[in-house]
Amino acid sequence: MNDERWLLPTGIEEVLPARAAELERLRRCLLDLYQRWGYELVIPPFIDYLDSLLTGTGRDLDLQTFKLTDQLSGRMLGVRADMTPQVARIDAHHLRREISTRLCYLGTVLHTRTDGFAGTRSPLQIGAEIYGHDGPASDVEVLRLLVRTLETAGIESPHLDLGHVGIYRGLIQQAGLTRADELRLFDALQRKASAEIEAIIAETGVAGPVGGMLLSLVELNGEDALTRASSALRAADPQVLKALERLKAVAEELSHWLPGLPVHFDLAELRGYTYKTGVVFAAFAPGWGLEIARGGRYDDIGQVFGRARPAVGFSADLKGLIALSARAADDEARPGAVLVPWDPDPALQRAVEHLRAQGRQVLHELPGQRGTPRDYNCCERLAQVDGVWQLVPDEAL
Amino acid sequence: MNDERWLLPTGIEEVLPARAAELERLRRCLLDLYQRWGYELVIPPFIDYLDSLLTGTGRDLDLQTFKLTDQLSGRMLGVRADMTPQVARIDAHHLRREISTRLCYLGTVLHTRTDGFAGTRSPLQIGAEIYGHDGPASDVEVLRLLVRTLETAGIESPHLDLGHVGIYRGLIQQAGLTRADELRLFDALQRKASAEIEAIIAETGVAGPVGGMLLSLVELNGEDALTRASSALRAADPQVLKALERLKAVAEELSHWLPGLPVHFDLAELRGYTYKTGVVFAAFAPGWGLEIARGGRYDDIGQVFGRARPAVGFSADLKGLIALSARAADDEARPGAVLVPWDPDPALQRAVEHLRAQGRQVLHELPGQRGTPRDYNCCERLAQVDGVWQLVPDEAL
Repeated sequence: MNDERWLLPTGIEEVLPARAAELERLRRCLLDLYQRWGYELVIPPFIDYLDSLLTGTGRDLDLQTFKLTDQLSGRMLGVRADMTPQVARIDAHHLRREISTRLCYLGTVLHTRTDGFAGTRSPLQIGAEIYGHDGPASDVEVLRLLVRTLETAGIESPHLDLGHVGIYRGLIQQAGLTRADELRLFDALQRKASAEIEAIIAETGVAGPVGGMLLSLVELNGEDALTRASSALRAADPQVLKALERLKAVAEELSHWLPGLPVHFDLAELRGYTYKTGVVFAAFAPGWGLEIARGGRYDDIGQVFGRARPAVGFSADLKGLIALSARAADDEARPGAVLVPWDPDPALQRAVEHLRAQGRQVLHELPGQRGTPRDYNCCERLAQVDGVWQLVPDEAL
Repeated sequence: MNDERWLLPTGIEEVLPARAAELERLRRCLLDLYQRWGYELVIPPFIDYLDSLLTGTGRDLDLQTFKLTDQLSGRMLGVRADMTPQVARIDAHHLRREISTRLCYLGTVLHTRTDGFAGTRSPLQIGAEIYGHDGPASDVEVLRLLVRTLETAGIESPHLDLGHVGIYRGLIQQAGLTRADELRLFDALQRKASAEIEAIIAETGVAGPVGGMLLSLVELNGEDALTRASSALRAADPQVLKALERLKAVAEELSHWLPGLPVHFDLAELRGYTYKTGVVFAAFAPGWGLEIARGGRYDDIGQVFGRARPAVGFSADLKGLIALSARAADDEARPGAVLVPWDPDPALQRAVEHLRAQGRQVLHELPGQRGTPRDYNCCERLAQVDGVWQLVPDEAL
């Protein structure tokens, strides 16, 4: 076994210097972006009581969550598989503000199984949320920030899938389906399996036009889906029509702010259906089949923590964004490092500090160290010239 | 149970906006510092195969490590309780350089039990290491970087404890003690329990002056300990004397680089004894009994990963450093935020981008949002004056 100690578990990565520097650069750009848009950084804990982590999130997240026993309390702990419920708790319990609150977060989450980008089990989740506002404007602000996030990461020509879970949820209520049938139908809808959906509708004896409307969801996607939906869903209950109107309002607003953004509407787009309550969306990059960011509205998420507030947000995997970035790796014209002798002369130390304060990388030459200056990426030296420490090109280069 | 969903496990913290901004600021300062000193950032994974995580680190770390079952491989995983062995693997297996390599890292580690600063179980570990150099210079560079780290964090007047595990280890070999007796004696030495040490020495029948030398370690601490040690340990084997000479060389070098630094020598200072091989040290802040950073030399750590290289480094808990920082919290004279109407006018968007590019925080006023501009920390507005978007003081303030 000894000679395999370097193996990493499937879907678990270590990040080496060049990629780590890129990640750190993008991390700072995005957190600065969010700060300037008014989103305050919070840092939820890596582990939490399991019932707190899984609150209201459904079975998928449960299966994805690593479980631990707390030796101090004897209770079950979970390693966070999604930071959204934790951020909701921070808003509901610890901040307790009356005003709208914009929060952002960044951190590793772990999944028991591989999924998402490149089969990872440890995405570096980054996200932003608005709490306490329930109009279309907060939906649109979050979508705008998502698009800006992708731009900042160097993702070219992303497009959006946009839907609203209230449409399906309302039709289910109108049809009077049981919870079990609702989930069977949901499953078939995700696969756009029309024949299966027809069979379920026939089998459950859904009366009147509502069966046809449920079936029509499979077709209600594309750029003109909202126009067709008005006709296809005209016999729907008011709550369905209200959800459709909200989706139209968001689409309309978004087209003013980001006129060139390709938006693909999809009324069967129901990611996170068990806890989402309004618009849902996902972002895609050309040539990559999986979503690169996702989000939506989940107005009741804070309820179990003591306060239900409107909430809308998005999240993405920073490592996935970096991998898809069209931006060339960090070959910026940063000057090479400076090699300096191992000498505690205060005048040399001042010269070194001066260079470092300018952002230069300065390496002390450790007595007996191996390799040439070039091996250490050094192109200059500090050397004493006429009794003064000065930068000189390294002759060895 | 529902009304306690917001409770956090003992020793597990969430970080709210003001503190999170401080942490992010210090994080950047330290990573920039390390980059300028030539230390490259690496990001080890949060979980790892258990046998890889615990390689050569001893029983303490085993007890502190949360264990998980990997559903994909059926093998045991651990949540990292220390990033040092992971960084050693990156050097030994993935980088495989012949030259000296300076690496740094930052990330959350988890412990099953509370310890260290404020009884935390989730320190934010930050550290730096030099691989591939075994002279006193690399010991001293790491100590200098540790001191600079504490300065950057605003820790005033830190002092160092400095020892060398080779002195105790050599005396044990000279005495011919069994492993069990070695550990009993080690335990008594950590508590500086002289009577107990005398009893163990008598009981094990250690012959000649070596018993007296082992006992003398209890007393060999303080600023003049190295001078006294030359006399007290004069009958020791060459390897003990060699370790003492190395410690003197490091102390001498350090006094040239950092003449004002208070150093307390302690030959019974054996933190990490099971895997350390050379100098060991810890840093303390005035008025706080626990160490705030620690480190030392552990030359053989890469061996199980395929290559033993000299290694020396330090680590600290960033959250602990922030808590002890004498620097005032982030009340810097940063201007308040700018409130702007919810309006997709391209001219307004350009004005907003311009302000954000200057680092200003700009918040869109969401239609119907609660609270006054002051509640959102806004002191100015963008308003149209003579058809041009301009910054104006908010009249409501």
